[in-house]
Amino acid sequence: MKAGEVVEVAIVMGSTSDWPTMKLAADKLAELQISYSKHVISAHRMPTQLADFAQQAAGNGIDVIIAGAGGAAHLPGMLAANTIVPVIGVPVKTRTLNGMDSLLSIVQMPSGVPVGTMAIGDAGASNAALFAASILALTDANVAKNLQAFRAKQTQKAIESEAQLDD
Amino acid sequence: MKAGEVVEVAIVMGSTSDWPTMKLAADKLAELQISYSKHVISAHRMPTQLADFAQQAAGNGIDVIIAGAGGAAHLPGMLAANTIVPVIGVPVKTRTLNGMDSLLSIVQMPSGVPVGTMAIGDAGASNAALFAASILALTDANVAKNLQAFRAKQTQKAIESEAQLDD
Amino acid sequence: MKAGEVVEVAIVMGSTSDWPTMKLAADKLAELQISYSKHVISAHRMPTQLADFAQQAAGNGIDVIIAGAGGAAHLPGMLAANTIVPVIGVPVKTRTLNGMDSLLSIVQMPSGVPVGTMAIGDAGASNAALFAASILALTDANVAKNLQAFRAKQTQKAIESEAQLDD
Amino acid sequence: MKAGEVVEVAIVMGSTSDWPTMKLAADKLAELQISYSKHVISAHRMPTQLADFAQQAAGNGIDVIIAGAGGAAHLPGMLAANTIVPVIGVPVKTRTLNGMDSLLSIVQMPSGVPVGTMAIGDAGASNAALFAASILALTDANVAKNLQAFRAKQTQKAIESEAQLDD
Amino acid sequence: MKAGEVVEVAIVMGSTSDWPTMKLAADKLAELQISYSKHVISAHRMPTQLADFAQQAAGNGIDVIIAGAGGAAHLPGMLAANTIVPVIGVPVKTRTLNGMDSLLSIVQMPSGVPVGTMAIGDAGASNAALFAASILALTDANVAKNLQAFRAKQTQKAIESEAQLDD
Amino acid sequence: MKAGEVVEVAIVMGSTSDWPTMKLAADKLAELQISYSKHVISAHRMPTQLADFAQQAAGNGIDVIIAGAGGAAHLPGMLAANTIVPVIGVPVKTRTLNGMDSLLSIVQMPSGVPVGTMAIGDAGASNAALFAASILALTDANVAKNLQAFRAKQTQKAIESEAQLDD
Amino acid sequence: MKAGEVVEVAIVMGSTSDWPTMKLAADKLAELQISYSKHVISAHRMPTQLADFAQQAAGNGIDVIIAGAGGAAHLPGMLAANTIVPVIGVPVKTRTLNGMDSLLSIVQMPSGVPVGTMAIGDAGASNAALFAASILALTDANVAKNLQAFRAKQTQKAIESEAQLDD
Amino acid sequence: MKAGEVVEVAIVMGSTSDWPTMKLAADKLAELQISYSKHVISAHRMPTQLADFAQQAAGNGIDVIIAGAGGAAHLPGMLAANTIVPVIGVPVKTRTLNGMDSLLSIVQMPSGVPVGTMAIGDAGASNAALFAASILALTDANVAKNLQAFRAKQTQKAIESEAQLDD
Repeated sequence: MKAGEVVEVAIVMGSTSDWPTMKLAADKLAELQISYSKHVISAHRMPTQLADFAQQAAGNGIDVIIAGAGGAAHLPGMLAANTIVPVIGVPVKTRTLNGMDSLLSIVQMPSGVPVGTMAIGDAGASNAALFAASILALTDANVAKNLQAFRAKQTQKAIESEAQLDD
Repeated sequence: MKAGEVVEVAIVMGSTSDWPTMKLAADKLAELQISYSKHVISAHRMPTQLADFAQQAAGNGIDVIIAGAGGAAHLPGMLAANTIVPVIGVPVKTRTLNGMDSLLSIVQMPSGVPVGTMAIGDAGASNAALFAASILALTDANVAKNLQAFRAKQTQKAIESEAQLDD
Repeated sequence: MKAGEVVEVAIVMGSTSDWPTMKLAADKLAELQISYSKHVISAHRMPTQLADFAQQAAGNGIDVIIAGAGGAAHLPGMLAANTIVPVIGVPVKTRTLNGMDSLLSIVQMPSGVPVGTMAIGDAGASNAALFAASILALTDANVAKNLQAFRAKQTQKAIESEAQLDD
Repeated sequence: MKAGEVVEVAIVMGSTSDWPTMKLAADKLAELQISYSKHVISAHRMPTQLADFAQQAAGNGIDVIIAGAGGAAHLPGMLAANTIVPVIGVPVKTRTLNGMDSLLSIVQMPSGVPVGTMAIGDAGASNAALFAASILALTDANVAKNLQAFRAKQTQKAIESEAQLDD
Repeated sequence: MKAGEVVEVAIVMGSTSDWPTMKLAADKLAELQISYSKHVISAHRMPTQLADFAQQAAGNGIDVIIAGAGGAAHLPGMLAANTIVPVIGVPVKTRTLNGMDSLLSIVQMPSGVPVGTMAIGDAGASNAALFAASILALTDANVAKNLQAFRAKQTQKAIESEAQLDD
Repeated sequence: MKAGEVVEVAIVMGSTSDWPTMKLAADKLAELQISYSKHVISAHRMPTQLADFAQQAAGNGIDVIIAGAGGAAHLPGMLAANTIVPVIGVPVKTRTLNGMDSLLSIVQMPSGVPVGTMAIGDAGASNAALFAASILALTDANVAKNLQAFRAKQTQKAIESEAQLDD
Repeated sequence: MKAGEVVEVAIVMGSTSDWPTMKLAADKLAELQISYSKHVISAHRMPTQLADFAQQAAGNGIDVIIAGAGGAAHLPGMLAANTIVPVIGVPVKTRTLNGMDSLLSIVQMPSGVPVGTMAIGDAGASNAALFAASILALTDANVAKNLQAFRAKQTQKAIESEAQLDD
Repeated sequence: MKAGEVVEVAIVMGSTSDWPTMKLAADKLAELQISYSKHVISAHRMPTQLADFAQQAAGNGIDVIIAGAGGAAHLPGMLAANTIVPVIGVPVKTRTLNGMDSLLSIVQMPSGVPVGTMAIGDAGASNAALFAASILALTDANVAKNLQAFRAKQTQKAIESEAQLDD
């Protein structure tokens, strides 16, 4: 993303160690021709930057935020606390509790501020992109077309995969 | 909802026993002046109706589906499997496992078909409406205004609530 | 299985990645001389095929369906929703939650539509075949004989295995 | 059941305290016109009776055993260890761990001896009867007809229940 | 607390519904003659106030912050992210997951920003006060004396309680 | 153990795959000069042998039974159901649920038939031997002396281990 | 227990609030004519008394210690750390985590110091008495006779309870 | 640490096997120029030494104790039971339950004796040092300065890390 460029989706993660997971969201957005930016914003080490980023998101033209974090994962919820832009949360797998801590820290938001939570880990990152696409598809016919094509291709591949079962 | 009327959000639940929870979503949508319809569609007892409903959702002008279910909660995921309309899942609290079964059955979707999952129970139902609003707010200035007003009022009420702490 | 051939048991899985687990069911059925077919039917990527398959199962002469899936595992329950043929569910082990998500998604079916659930992973796949055999054995003397022989041999091997304990 | 009478399904439970749950299985079998007997056989207090019962089950004409127990629930698995008659396990809800202990004790059977496990508690007991019916329906046209009628009626009731949602 | 008054400990909670729990911390601080103030600061509904409060805590003479919250409990961690004043976290019991979600959201902080976490619920709130006292006791002889007296009295009461065991 | 030889402790396991764990119990018994025998008795594949073994244990002079098993671990509880000889249970670690299933299947025995349960895995196997020793030590001065010496040596080793901390 | 009187079993609990549970152990010991004493010894509020009690247990003629505690339940393990008398642990049910915390705190002892752990709550307390009896029965013919009679009566009652199943 | 030298923080662990984790606490203290000593004190193998150490801690000039242990982790709680010096607990990751047992054994302390608990494993050990620093910083300007510098540097590094995200 060049300075001043407006993107549809911002991918935010708490640490560069989340990138191998969150890259799957980026790849899927690219595949669906959705523009995105990527950011490292640690909820606990960069709380001021977090608030600034979220408060400026709408003004910067961002339509959807995808936020991934692990452990006591406060990033998605705190972004959502500072904006009404939809925030999609990705619980990153952790070494000790396998991401169950991440999941509960993200999904169990109290009434008033929601985070749309995805599955733990890689599947969740991919699906975050697809969920963002389903939101954008409501008003962007090109994204809708690409998403429908992706889904159709995915179904076709699943059907054909049966032939791969060996004996 | 009258026949033929187009609503923005469809609230779907697996059983009438989910209504006390899902009514919180309906109430919040009403508060935000978002039109909605409500439906009982059991994934396991009405699989054909489920598929029909989801496949026709986009054509019927539905922008967002909110789906609540408990236990082996397949409703949100199977709706999502049949449409690209965004599906927001609400894990209903269960008597045996407190909704942990509902949560995992809804949130752990495999790569390819996402469900934006909310917290277990009442908070999740309320937040499903707010998340739907945040999606609609991207292109509906009235919803955006109402959502921002709700959030501002909510903040104000939280600030003022401190006075209620007795000694 | 050749086209038009009638089999006693259909093994269905949500993805080819489930095959290393589900193959144990196939091997055990073969050992017991029970005919079977194998299918990849993703609940979320192939919902229409899933409904068709289940609705035609009885007419196609299938006596038992063995269905394995992981994560938010909706395949066994949705097959059961579309047929009265007994469905045996195998929770496939997952990378994040070790199959606890698969187990709860399969076993916690609401009243009205049952899935006979097996253990997580390999043991569950093997046992799905043995459970199918116990059903078929009710009316097929050959399967009953083979199953009893298997169980007797298994007992004998367990007895003899004590000699393998080193000092 | 009168002495000498042959029943299709035996309902076994570890304690009379399991009866309020297991009665739901009995009621559902009665509704489907399936004959059954009911038994209290504690795995830990009546191990000899347990072995005798299971070993004689096939000879006594029993086609399916439904076994419910709570906590370290060994009853279903030990019945299955002593017979090739299909055993359907119902994890009874417990006061301390809500039946998660019952579920794992029943479902996590090692390779070689399966138990078809149902949901924890009331839903599991009802479904055990329906699963037994699906087995009997393979060769009993009357049960098949009754089961199909039950399923159709259940679907109809679910469809009609939508009208009960108040405003 | 009067305006401008300097207190040793600030008790912060996410909602007035946390007060019945957090009051136990207040009562214990009062018993130990430690000055405190009490605040409702919702992490998600008052993120700006949260940051301000934490950033000004040290300057306002606060030595220890006790923070209680439930569910996706981000309050303690986000306070700690904005100050180097020690933050003691109290996971408030929740209706769905009994506070396991609160516990993991508070205790599983990533490397770099710690929260000293107490037990879930009432015991945790009481102990938060005692832990704050143990910190203040390092340099406040009066608190040290009071804390030692409390501990001695507590031991004495435990010893004497044996007489209450009826037959 | 030679035929007819009387041993103090019988080590029983459900499968030879439990031996790497249970061998730690054997090694510790040997170290404490306690005689033992070792047996593979699968609860599910050898139920008749299980009952015979337990019913004859007291008559065969066995003072303590150590029983290890994994998954739906019924071996310790079913042995205890057939004897009043103390049964010490060792939950063997499992590949899917890490032994949490083994633990709950062993420890959650209903009122009436106890199993003295140890930790999951290797520590539990070692400790089973030490617990057996503590029982035998009540009436065997030599075992008491050996156990006390072991404990003293263990304490000494723990004290000396501090020197191994590198910088 | 009068001063100087020697008892076979000491029942120890962390708090008088554990007595409703631990009384079941006392009642069962009385039923089996086993002498016992009862004690409140809080691991955290009375650590010195705990060490003294355990170190003197053998010298005071105590053969078995039954120890019940809840939450971070350190009492059984710390008693075992200070004696070679067998310690039977009873995890008391807790309000937040239902005794899962108590169970793991008691059962997961590291290699070197065992605690024979019972089920959570009432069943565990009863069974602690029965397990103590099984230890004493090894050398006390009267206890052995009483325990066998109890088990036989228990079996008889279980058999007869079947008549209580209503229709 | 030389004999007689006074340190600010004592790092205590239950076994040398905890050192790879606890070394992260030591390294962080060194980085912040806080003096520390390190000790192996097993709660179960060295209970007398544990009590002595804790009772002498205040007199020896120790301001904060960091205690790490795994499994049924009684070390932090029992240290806290014997001193009013603040005890920071680090739940060490375990092979079977990943440290969930350690966490619950440390954090779920009953009312009356607190342990400030950190995250499971490495992050928890690092954070224990930072939490100790935050306590010392209340009265030690040098530690306060070092801690603030650490936090500022940490924030700067997080900000700069964004550049490391590859494409």
